[in-house]
Amino acid sequence: MELITDKAAMRAWSRARHLQHKRIGFVPTMGALHAGHLALVELAAQHADEVVVSIYVNPTQFDRRDDFERYPRAVADDQSALAGTPCRAVFAPSDLYNHDHMTWVEVPALAAHLCGAYRPGHFRGVATIVTKFFSIVTPDVAVFGDKDYQQRRVIERMVSDLDLPLTIVAGPTTREPDGLAMSSRNARLTAEWRAAAVSIPDALFAARDRFLGGERRVGALRKPMLDAFAKTGGIVDYVAVADDATLTPMGDDQRVDRPAVIAVAVFFGGVRLIDNVRLDP
Amino acid sequence: MELITDKAAMRAWSRARHLQHKRIGFVPTMGALHAGHLALVELAAQHADEVVVSIYVNPTQFDRRDDFERYPRAVADDQSALAGTPCRAVFAPSDLYNHDHMTWVEVPALAAHLCGAYRPGHFRGVATIVTKFFSIVTPDVAVFGDKDYQQRRVIERMVSDLDLPLTIVAGPTTREPDGLAMSSRNARLTAEWRAAAVSIPDALFAARDRFLGGERRVGALRKPMLDAFAKTGGIVDYVAVADDATLTPMGDDQRVDRPAVIAVAVFFGGVRLIDNVRLDP
Repeated sequence: MELITDKAAMRAWSRARHLQHKRIGFVPTMGALHAGHLALVELAAQHADEVVVSIYVNPTQFDRRDDFERYPRAVADDQSALAGTPCRAVFAPSDLYNHDHMTWVEVPALAAHLCGAYRPGHFRGVATIVTKFFSIVTPDVAVFGDKDYQQRRVIERMVSDLDLPLTIVAGPTTREPDGLAMSSRNARLTAEWRAAAVSIPDALFAARDRFLGGERRVGALRKPMLDAFAKTGGIVDYVAVADDATLTPMGDDQRVDRPAVIAVAVFFGGVRLIDNVRLDP
Repeated sequence: MELITDKAAMRAWSRARHLQHKRIGFVPTMGALHAGHLALVELAAQHADEVVVSIYVNPTQFDRRDDFERYPRAVADDQSALAGTPCRAVFAPSDLYNHDHMTWVEVPALAAHLCGAYRPGHFRGVATIVTKFFSIVTPDVAVFGDKDYQQRRVIERMVSDLDLPLTIVAGPTTREPDGLAMSSRNARLTAEWRAAAVSIPDALFAARDRFLGGERRVGALRKPMLDAFAKTGGIVDYVAVADDATLTPMGDDQRVDRPAVIAVAVFFGGVRLIDNVRLDP
């Protein structure tokens, strides 16, 4: 497994493989790798001949400086974690932006709601850095996890609208044994808050079960979730039942009569966690 | 010379050449080709093995629907014009956008002034369509004319900021014998307005001469130009002496003590014409 820190070297690595007619798979990450990331690497390997994993904590997608600074960084551990996987190259640049960077890629309509409403500029930063990575790594396929559902949808839309020459593959969310979605942020939870955070998957799965049992009223799906987080001390950014096509939250008086997603963002002990489940009527 | 109208065929054409280690040069146009475009094709051929010219009137860069609709279209004439040039393929798609396109590439800081201030959304449309073309045509080098100076600067900045894997080459402005910059819009001028429009290069070159003669006061450079257009019936959008680094217009009380550009946009008989000259102290 190669460690590449330089744009030109990354380009050359990919170019050499394209000239050998090899397909490149790409898994962009911010490091602090866990089993969820490793599952995305395995998935990428099913769609490509060689897999590149990037490790880069992208400053432009953080709306809060303290969140950026506290984001876990452990490149040596990350390389060890990738040693047993099909990853062939780690791209870990120290910096990727011009000092006076001023170009932005945006999908405003898909970024207006859910996390986009609570993290100003977040998806603009994501779309921009991902465009840069696609330009440098030139993958044939890139894998994005379903845990960051809105992110994957923004990227899929950007790839289609800009004719970027690659395919996006969705990776299912990897969960801890108790159901909590794996996230680099989980490491920042105390034992107490970690126990409380399981109310996220519990509430999501309970809502999905009610939906599968015939409940279609948005309010009746949302209310028990809000109650659950109130009980476990979760501070809610949003608990939304959103139209899957537009990611626009539906009103409590509406009915889920089309594909939808229940998406939540809840703080436990100051750590912001997100998760989601799809609903298909 | 091949005529390609389909994205997938264009990609395949380029891919085949890249696998033969050929460099692709690209000249994006909106058709209605004139000698200025053909000079850009010749320039592209100096930097590449094969040249692609795109012909596409991009709806998203027009702020006025009537301007979009009246933009001259003559693909058959354009193909004839290209027959004697190094152009190997014409990419003339009928449409390039998803029906619900929602992704935008922007360089807001460079698009805030000059044409950007008078044509809302124009450079967003330009940056977005050019990103799409770069994704589809995958050129090694693309040529942009200096006549559309702000456009070239926006594209150069976008390429650098997004790490797009190509080089931008600037093509000098091609002029009619009397100095008027060649433009597809010139065909819409009546004989009288065509005669009046020569006041644009006359005023620009006179201003540059005053600058070369030692005049550094912005107001003293601008005033004779405004007077000239008042005399010939030109309706001014802007007559600006702009800092070349930021494209921000300088105040009349400032002095040109750094690289600058005199840029103008003036209507003659309802036809908007632009032109510029560089100033290097």
